[in-house]
Amino acid sequence: MPELSPHMSDVPESMCMDLNADLGEGFGIWQLGDDAALLEVITSANVACGFHAGDGTIMRRVCRIAAERGVVLGAQVSYRDLSGFGRRRIDMPTEVLADEVLYQLAALDGIARTEGSRVAYVKPHGALNNATVLDVGQAEGVVQAVVAYDRSLAMLAQPSSQLERLSREAGLDTVLEAFPDRAYESDGQLVSRRKDGAVLHDAAVVAARAVAFAREKQVVAHDGSLVRVAARSLCVHGDSPGAVETARSVRSALEGAGFRVTAFR
Amino acid sequence: MPELSPHMSDVPESMCMDLNADLGEGFGIWQLGDDAALLEVITSANVACGFHAGDGTIMRRVCRIAAERGVVLGAQVSYRDLSGFGRRRIDMPTEVLADEVLYQLAALDGIARTEGSRVAYVKPHGALNNATVLDVGQAEGVVQAVVAYDRSLAMLAQPSSQLERLSREAGLDTVLEAFPDRAYESDGQLVSRRKDGAVLHDAAVVAARAVAFAREKQVVAHDGSLVRVAARSLCVHGDSPGAVETARSVRSALEGAGFRVTAFR
Amino acid sequence: MPELSPHMSDVPESMCMDLNADLGEGFGIWQLGDDAALLEVITSANVACGFHAGDGTIMRRVCRIAAERGVVLGAQVSYRDLSGFGRRRIDMPTEVLADEVLYQLAALDGIARTEGSRVAYVKPHGALNNATVLDVGQAEGVVQAVVAYDRSLAMLAQPSSQLERLSREAGLDTVLEAFPDRAYESDGQLVSRRKDGAVLHDAAVVAARAVAFAREKQVVAHDGSLVRVAARSLCVHGDSPGAVETARSVRSALEGAGFRVTAFR
Amino acid sequence: MPELSPHMSDVPESMCMDLNADLGEGFGIWQLGDDAALLEVITSANVACGFHAGDGTIMRRVCRIAAERGVVLGAQVSYRDLSGFGRRRIDMPTEVLADEVLYQLAALDGIARTEGSRVAYVKPHGALNNATVLDVGQAEGVVQAVVAYDRSLAMLAQPSSQLERLSREAGLDTVLEAFPDRAYESDGQLVSRRKDGAVLHDAAVVAARAVAFAREKQVVAHDGSLVRVAARSLCVHGDSPGAVETARSVRSALEGAGFRVTAFR
Repeated sequence: MPELSPHMSDVPESMCMDLNADLGEGFGIWQLGDDAALLEVITSANVACGFHAGDGTIMRRVCRIAAERGVVLGAQVSYRDLSGFGRRRIDMPTEVLADEVLYQLAALDGIARTEGSRVAYVKPHGALNNATVLDVGQAEGVVQAVVAYDRSLAMLAQPSSQLERLSREAGLDTVLEAFPDRAYESDGQLVSRRKDGAVLHDAAVVAARAVAFAREKQVVAHDGSLVRVAARSLCVHGDSPGAVETARSVRSALEGAGFRVTAFR
Repeated sequence: MPELSPHMSDVPESMCMDLNADLGEGFGIWQLGDDAALLEVITSANVACGFHAGDGTIMRRVCRIAAERGVVLGAQVSYRDLSGFGRRRIDMPTEVLADEVLYQLAALDGIARTEGSRVAYVKPHGALNNATVLDVGQAEGVVQAVVAYDRSLAMLAQPSSQLERLSREAGLDTVLEAFPDRAYESDGQLVSRRKDGAVLHDAAVVAARAVAFAREKQVVAHDGSLVRVAARSLCVHGDSPGAVETARSVRSALEGAGFRVTAFR
Repeated sequence: MPELSPHMSDVPESMCMDLNADLGEGFGIWQLGDDAALLEVITSANVACGFHAGDGTIMRRVCRIAAERGVVLGAQVSYRDLSGFGRRRIDMPTEVLADEVLYQLAALDGIARTEGSRVAYVKPHGALNNATVLDVGQAEGVVQAVVAYDRSLAMLAQPSSQLERLSREAGLDTVLEAFPDRAYESDGQLVSRRKDGAVLHDAAVVAARAVAFAREKQVVAHDGSLVRVAARSLCVHGDSPGAVETARSVRSALEGAGFRVTAFR
Repeated sequence: MPELSPHMSDVPESMCMDLNADLGEGFGIWQLGDDAALLEVITSANVACGFHAGDGTIMRRVCRIAAERGVVLGAQVSYRDLSGFGRRRIDMPTEVLADEVLYQLAALDGIARTEGSRVAYVKPHGALNNATVLDVGQAEGVVQAVVAYDRSLAMLAQPSSQLERLSREAGLDTVLEAFPDRAYESDGQLVSRRKDGAVLHDAAVVAARAVAFAREKQVVAHDGSLVRVAARSLCVHGDSPGAVETARSVRSALEGAGFRVTAFR
């Protein structure tokens, strides 16, 4: 569907918004989420690289379909933790983390090229993503890997994170993302999933917040305050039928509000 | 040491011989073999890619040192079997095997490029290598991965194997290897390690066989018959101090006999 | 539901039939099959032990629910192959296989005891089960592990397999199983899943075959011949809603025909 | 050698000291440390259970030799982290950690029983051990597993740790250990390995500290202050030839000072 976006290259960057989602998160016989449905909605695919999910067969299939549909590929790098789905923080030394991220990034990029595409950006997954918000050493590991591998890759980071800061310092194209289905703290961080109201489920509400992110570059936080979030990409989910429907609502709302849903790369 | 080879580019190909060895076969805290010593002797390094051994840190270190010394890099792809060191045959469907090989090859190649080098060839490891001698489906999986990834890569194969045949049919640069420290059957296959006399330990004997492979393109088999083995590469080992010494003897003997020890790529 | 079986201890053994199914076949975040539904239907649970599926949390939950419902626990031991779900044969030396089976069996049995139950039998999973039909070394590995661990455990084996033979020779209580939803060859082996008609999907047909196994100890093979299969246990599946419904039909048909559905241990 | 201890059952408990060490820390082809040498010196073996190191074959071999020599077996439970040797903290929920510890403990205990012994105690490994010093949730996970499995098992804990506190509260036999080759902070914690002087290498110094732990129940801390450490067990190492020699010195010094080197269970 990306090729059907209503507006074309004459659309100013300020009227463009990317939709990203996590894909390829099965392993062997196990499946998770509805990759095919999401690939009809999103413009950037965060592909699991084998450490929290994903294997050669799954990665190749996602790359193939994404390439056919013009969906941009990102490496969703993770701690090595199949058993915990990369959701548990692992205190890794910076250099070792960089090597592990590099391995994943290289594997996915080579598979992507085999399918006629390329990895265009990197996004840390789960606990690694959370760690890179505040922990300099973990953020540094991810940045080092990308700098070593290919400085032309973009980094998809959370606003005001150490990852954003270090990525910019390293001269990487640093793109910020927002979560229309998540509540925000007044400092711009996500409300922890352990708290009530952390995740929003009403598709209309989520879609409206998506439009607010795109139009006003801000969001109403949990406590009613306004928080600036200059996101060029919105993260949507596909691990339930309702989630896919919500993602479609987000896309429709953005397009209805005059935005072009298009990748940042 | 590769750069110190006595003869230079005016040496005819028939007077050139490659020495390859398995490297990077540790995992995490565990080590195996003496990579540093071997990298002083060999001209082609078969680097473990994480499935039977190897991780990002180990792979990167081997790639870095090999690049510094001008040692050519090969992807030593394997069944996914850390627990069995890739020495146990796993009956994988051809397509899945191809995807798994592709993953490993891509990971190593990306790391190699990060260190200023490239993967130049593929060599299956252990049980996968054995399987590709006779099993068309397993050999096909390896060939498919290389063809999909980069047709300019070479395949390092055993003579008269299905891997050699399919690799040539696919148009890949197919290089044959021989084992100076292994006894041969009269049909050109290696004598099984389970039989007495399968592995030769006398450095002088091994070195002499290496020269015979280089000079006469043949070897005296277990039963006394002569077997033609047109190898452009000889496999040496480094998992014991004596093995490294034998590898040095092989190199010295080849150079003493007027051969240039140089990579095939 | 097991405790609601229509007949009680005055039922002759020839009028008893066990229903077994594979359970606990998720891993971490990933799920497979409907364990809760199956535990309402079956009398013996083949619990994955962490090598092809299963982890501590999943194993403990299955053991707990099974104990509550009086479902007997079996260790579904496998090759170490999460990536291939244990469906790929791995050529393991007999002694190493025995050690790997022992590890799995011990882990499950300890967890079962923690939940007030015990492992009562062993059933190899997937490719290991297939291997033990004809391969003496693989069957021997499984038998050695059980003999070493606890000679009072039963072995659930396919009729006329090496596993049956070696298990009986070792003095283990050896119980045979049959598959009402699978076509049979005239020699009593299962028709390969790669052939058309290997798997039967009509619940009524499957239920009728289950009753035939129970009543006549034989089955009509693929080619029309009659094959004797003296099964004390029937294997049912739960990896799709239809499969669970079929399992319920099998149970109802057996009870309707006057059989008591009860574990063999 | 344990059976050769100079004093017998008439020795008061205050004159007894246990020597424990980590064993079975290889995996597949890879080896670490000299198990055979250590089993001649120590009285309690902390056996790796497959999550940071160890597999069925290694575990069984260690259990067999330990049983022959009368060395007591402990389960060295760990985070699931082969790649990082269990030295990286993984933030696991308490309940999941308990399940993972239970799995490992059960596996080793079953193997031990197969070799005529039993697991007598539990000791967390590496990062998990460090975590249990201060983190209530991680310590609770380990304690829950032991309580669920067998309340008669002992816990080997660091003095003043959360693990010690919770283990005592749960009614477990809680045994304290000290490290004669490690420097101590004045609060009784170990000096971090990242600091200079954290590890002592002089065998005579280490042996003297071992005797001081045994005789005076205290140690001179890094800053010169005296710290009370009421250890019943001393941890020694075997991952280098020098380490084994140091372990022997520790044993000799203890026996020379009139202590009986004997297990706490």
